[in-house]
Amino acid sequence: GAGAENDLYINQAIVFIEDAIQYRSINHRVDSKSLWLYRWYYSRTCQWILSLTITVILALAFIEEPSSLTITSDVRYRLPAWNPPCGLTESIELLCFLVFVVDVSVKSYLIGWKEFWKNKWLMAYILTLIVSLADWIVSLSFFCKEGVRIRRILRPFFLLQNSSMMKKTLKSINSTLPEMASVVLLLAVHLSLFTMFAMLLFARTKGNQQDKEWVVYFRNLPDSLTSLLVLLTTANNPDVMIPAYSKNRAYSIFFILFTVLGNLFLMNLLTAIIYNQFRGYLLKSVQSSLFRRRLGIRAAFEVLSSLKEAPASAQQACVSVGALLQVLQKAEMDSRCKQVIMRSLKICSCDQLSAAQFQKLFEELDKDGIKQHPPSPEYQSHFMQKMQFAFGHPYFGYLGNVVALANIISICMFLVMDADKQLSERDDFFLGAINCFFILYYLLEVLLKILAMGLKRYLSYPSNRFDGLLTVILLILEIATFAVYGFPHSGWRPEFMGLLSLWDMVRLVNMLIVFRFLRIIPNMKFMALVVTTLLDLVKNLRAFAGILVVVFYAFAITGIMLFKGAVVPLGNARYSNFLQGAQNSKAGFTGSCVHIRPVISCKSSNVIFQGKKCDLMVPAHFQAEVIYCLLYVLSVHLVCRWAKIYFVAWWLISSVIWVNLFVALLLENFIHKWDRRCQQESVSDIEYQRTVELMFRDVLEEPTEEELMEKLHQHPHLQLCR
Amino acid sequence: GAGAENDLYINQAIVFIEDAIQYRSINHRVDSKSLWLYRWYYSRTCQWILSLTITVILALAFIEEPSSLTITSDVRYRLPAWNPPCGLTESIELLCFLVFVVDVSVKSYLIGWKEFWKNKWLMAYILTLIVSLADWIVSLSFFCKEGVRIRRILRPFFLLQNSSMMKKTLKSINSTLPEMASVVLLLAVHLSLFTMFAMLLFARTKGNQQDKEWVVYFRNLPDSLTSLLVLLTTANNPDVMIPAYSKNRAYSIFFILFTVLGNLFLMNLLTAIIYNQFRGYLLKSVQSSLFRRRLGIRAAFEVLSSLKEAPASAQQACVSVGALLQVLQKAEMDSRCKQVIMRSLKICSCDQLSAAQFQKLFEELDKDGIKQHPPSPEYQSHFMQKMQFAFGHPYFGYLGNVVALANIISICMFLVMDADKQLSERDDFFLGAINCFFILYYLLEVLLKILAMGLKRYLSYPSNRFDGLLTVILLILEIATFAVYGFPHSGWRPEFMGLLSLWDMVRLVNMLIVFRFLRIIPNMKFMALVVTTLLDLVKNLRAFAGILVVVFYAFAITGIMLFKGAVVPLGNARYSNFLQGAQNSKAGFTGSCVHIRPVISCKSSNVIFQGKKCDLMVPAHFQAEVIYCLLYVLSVHLVCRWAKIYFVAWWLISSVIWVNLFVALLLENFIHKWDRRCQQESVSDIEYQRTVELMFRDVLEEPTEEELMEKLHQHPHLQLCR
Repeated sequence: GAGAENDLYINQAIVFIEDAIQYRSINHRVDSKSLWLYRWYYSRTCQWILSLTITVILALAFIEEPSSLTITSDVRYRLPAWNPPCGLTESIELLCFLVFVVDVSVKSYLIGWKEFWKNKWLMAYILTLIVSLADWIVSLSFFCKEGVRIRRILRPFFLLQNSSMMKKTLKSINSTLPEMASVVLLLAVHLSLFTMFAMLLFARTKGNQQDKEWVVYFRNLPDSLTSLLVLLTTANNPDVMIPAYSKNRAYSIFFILFTVLGNLFLMNLLTAIIYNQFRGYLLKSVQSSLFRRRLGIRAAFEVLSSLKEAPASAQQACVSVGALLQVLQKAEMDSRCKQVIMRSLKICSCDQLSAAQFQKLFEELDKDGIKQHPPSPEYQSHFMQKMQFAFGHPYFGYLGNVVALANIISICMFLVMDADKQLSERDDFFLGAINCFFILYYLLEVLLKILAMGLKRYLSYPSNRFDGLLTVILLILEIATFAVYGFPHSGWRPEFMGLLSLWDMVRLVNMLIVFRFLRIIPNMKFMALVVTTLLDLVKNLRAFAGILVVVFYAFAITGIMLFKGAVVPLGNARYSNFLQGAQNSKAGFTGSCVHIRPVISCKSSNVIFQGKKCDLMVPAHFQAEVIYCLLYVLSVHLVCRWAKIYFVAWWLISSVIWVNLFVALLLENFIHKWDRRCQQESVSDIEYQRTVELMFRDVLEEPTEEELMEKLHQHPHLQLCR
Repeated sequence: GAGAENDLYINQAIVFIEDAIQYRSINHRVDSKSLWLYRWYYSRTCQWILSLTITVILALAFIEEPSSLTITSDVRYRLPAWNPPCGLTESIELLCFLVFVVDVSVKSYLIGWKEFWKNKWLMAYILTLIVSLADWIVSLSFFCKEGVRIRRILRPFFLLQNSSMMKKTLKSINSTLPEMASVVLLLAVHLSLFTMFAMLLFARTKGNQQDKEWVVYFRNLPDSLTSLLVLLTTANNPDVMIPAYSKNRAYSIFFILFTVLGNLFLMNLLTAIIYNQFRGYLLKSVQSSLFRRRLGIRAAFEVLSSLKEAPASAQQACVSVGALLQVLQKAEMDSRCKQVIMRSLKICSCDQLSAAQFQKLFEELDKDGIKQHPPSPEYQSHFMQKMQFAFGHPYFGYLGNVVALANIISICMFLVMDADKQLSERDDFFLGAINCFFILYYLLEVLLKILAMGLKRYLSYPSNRFDGLLTVILLILEIATFAVYGFPHSGWRPEFMGLLSLWDMVRLVNMLIVFRFLRIIPNMKFMALVVTTLLDLVKNLRAFAGILVVVFYAFAITGIMLFKGAVVPLGNARYSNFLQGAQNSKAGFTGSCVHIRPVISCKSSNVIFQGKKCDLMVPAHFQAEVIYCLLYVLSVHLVCRWAKIYFVAWWLISSVIWVNLFVALLLENFIHKWDRRCQQESVSDIEYQRTVELMFRDVLEEPTEEELMEKLHQHPHLQLCR
């Protein structure tokens, strides 16, 4: 009947508007049941469960064998990690797989059969699930003793497919690959030509001392290639040329040429190419988000305009205000936006809305909520007003910063003075007393500020929240210290009583004071700019970070699998010596192996790995795992080649490509920000709520009506009346 | 009289046009004698003498005591360097100073007294000369035994002041300094806060094994600061965190935070800032060059228009063609341009030229000479025509590339096969025979190409010149080899006869063959683009390279002076052991010193210095000097602090700032080039003669007539009639 049809239209409009708000595609089924399923699927609970499942399945690696969730990473001291019984992690995995099966079936159903065949991500999802389940069955039938677990490497895929941002970013990276490949090819040509040159230049000679370069770095093709590849990472920079250089200074020309061409030119060319490709990336992505939003709103308008209740007399399609109000009440959206739209609907006296008016109403969604701080309390007493003026003044904040600086300097002085003292000589009296005084001042500052600004206004500033929270923690710590150890007195010794020793307590207090000093950031203009840029960047980088997690995870699991056989469980004492040797001196280390040569080439991979590239440090958990793995590996010769290839791949992907992507994004973000800053020199308030969409607001193009309607007519499930 | 006045005007016009061609400022004296002096000063000979003088005075450091112009850099083997007798280098220096005195007086005279006081560079020049001469006198009066030679550090100034490009670049860098300083300040804050945190976190504890981190890296404030500073260069990346990490994995969070914030964010922020500042740099510099050119031409027009011979009846100023022809004949300029201008003057039937016409004539100067290759010879015989078609076809070139590749692969195979053979087992017969065949093919290829294209056309392509030259050298080498060692036969042993051993000859041939393989570059599109970008970059980078030389020179001289007292001349045997120890194992090295602590902190500076930063390698000559210097230094405690400051400054300037400048320029150049390539996809020919001016031709703004005239009226020496 007409009522049921009207209900369907209303529901469709609600879903389309929610799609618009979340920047989702509207290409899904639009019948009543599907709409219910769709809203259920995109409800917070469901999405939260899905995210939790992904987190759980990724986190399984930490407790699965070989797990490394121990406090110390030193194999000599660490207790054997807890090994879950066979079937525990597997049953958790099965649960996760079941959730994914539900997820993929709902998704496939919702987009419809026709669209399903076009969607490669969904197909890959199903394939991954099938392979994982098969592997799971194999795993159980071997009672968890099977050698290779393919499904572990496949796990990050679940993270990847769940985020549209990550898929988009991956597509964008994918389109840059041909050009990156060209540069990598150039690098390869550069490397191979120079390798041949080096092998001809540093050949074996008759003298013993003379061919040191040849013995150590250029003995054969793999060695030469490794030496120069490592030189490209600058890890063995002066070492590799020293023997040749000490023979004849002119040899350095070879290395200088290689480094300048390879490192300065080709590597930076990679940065240039990636930056060039990504210059438009943010803008394009924001533009397509805008298109999705406009499309969703337009679709809502179209379905609402075909409601039967309205008099279909007018030539122009229009929507009754009543229907829109009905939709708005049921749609899930930011309450502030909802209020603003409702209000402007009431102000607008008209009964019918045209398409343009409809769009205009929803432009509120694009706008930034201008943060208004609650007003300060108004005091009657003259004295209180003066107090308010004094302690609400910025200078009072500056005074606080100066006091915090003084506190830090005092801590620093004590650190310097105590550096050479033995523990027994140490006396914490002075520092304890000084800190006590400073913390009292901090408390006073917080109280006076609350007095001047009122609690609500005080808490509305993030810097105040940071400040206040730390002050409270400091106060609690200080009181606890006094409760356990009494007030500071001469000879206040760091004896151990209660939960923490006095010494630890004081250290903790000092650390918090140092941390509290960060409150100066908003007061320094350039610092504030940098920090807001960084915060923006972190937002925009989420997709990149996700892809990075995927890559790291895959590499870590591959590494664990590859080097599993290589891990020779040495006796504790022997291993301890081995490790000691390895850490203390490379000479001793080399000597402990019978065959020196493979060790040398492996050492080079090790150098790549330790790689002097910062980002290699990020997944420290996995990394150190791999360090020890590699230390084991060094005693096994055959794995060496594999380790080399593995680490070169790792270096290329994580260090070269990812760092360059990061630099490109940073350049993009910073330059946009900088340009804006120059334009709006007057806007002094720092807005923490800036989104990417807002950054590009003045550059974005609004989609035309024709584009929107064409797209709408291509919708696979929605039949528009007109 | 009028004749003399006319001559003066003609001379002025000549000088102004030459100024325009060379992009020089026209603000100099314009009376007859000054003009003569000016043309003499800017004549090729004079400028060449000046450049030579600068080169000589900079090169003096290589033979002055302590000189290092020995073949080997190893102190154990090298003979004592030649020490010039006192007075030799000093007299060369005096000659150079005299040239500079003449230079500065001519320059000061030419710009006039008023301008002189405004020109800070000239004042600094004079000051530098006075200080240098005073230092020279002191030096001679001490019979060259004086301790400090200030004038050495001042030397690079002579290079700096002679290049207007370098002065401009320096100004540009100078304007970026405030923002760079902000980031460096941020870095300092970051570093100091984290240092305090680290000192509180890794404090001394009671256990022996437990506080390894404290003992090695965070014992006191300078140590902690150094450890974290070195971590910022990523040189001690995993090492610094391993002791703490092996105690508790959670400690890695501290290091990860530090590295991500410092290295990924702040360091790249520096890149972003510098890039942002330099985005407009090239354009601005080219724009100001254009203004100078237009101004010079306009000035020439103005002086020519006030010639007495012309009928001053017209309201508009104009210039007679005859006068212009007279000027053109006397002016020094590119002969091609001169011909083109003369021709268009003859074509233009008018007798008088207006200002616009005059400017238009000289626009030929801005244009790129389109390189036309001479035509191929036209053969009568049908057979010859077919031959010409076959060997002039690009496929013949590709075949040549394939053959060159095959040759390289064969060399590579022999290198791999010979890698483990002893010298006595080696037999060069096969490789010799194969190379002989290949070289004959190369010769044939060159001859056939010359046959097809004609010698002139063949030589007009740079890739052909490269190819032909190498083929001729290879042929000569091969003939020489056969002449000395006979044709290849089984058991063709690398015995030593004649100038080079057979082994060396074959190696040299192989190296040249590898080098010849670079001829493929123009055939690969992306490679060609990259190579042309790099060539452009090298042109634009000359000013930067000059400044880099200045900085390197100053640092090298300062280093030699600073660490002079620290160089303890150890006995040969003892030093040998010391060096051996240092190279083979760090443990042995550390053990050889009594006081471990200063060595550790110095080792850190050493690590900064070896710095894992490519550009540190560039001045290998000076660098290795300093490496040995530092090895000496390690045994001297007091110098340690100074060394640290010195190397941190070096790292900041040469590695951080310069590399970022380089990246910024590369980005700028590459992105411009890339945009152009996308526009002109059709232009397939690679033009090697591209200049910066041409790259920006479509973006440049022509100066207006008002701007030009205003500038002309501000000329300090030229009184215009109108």
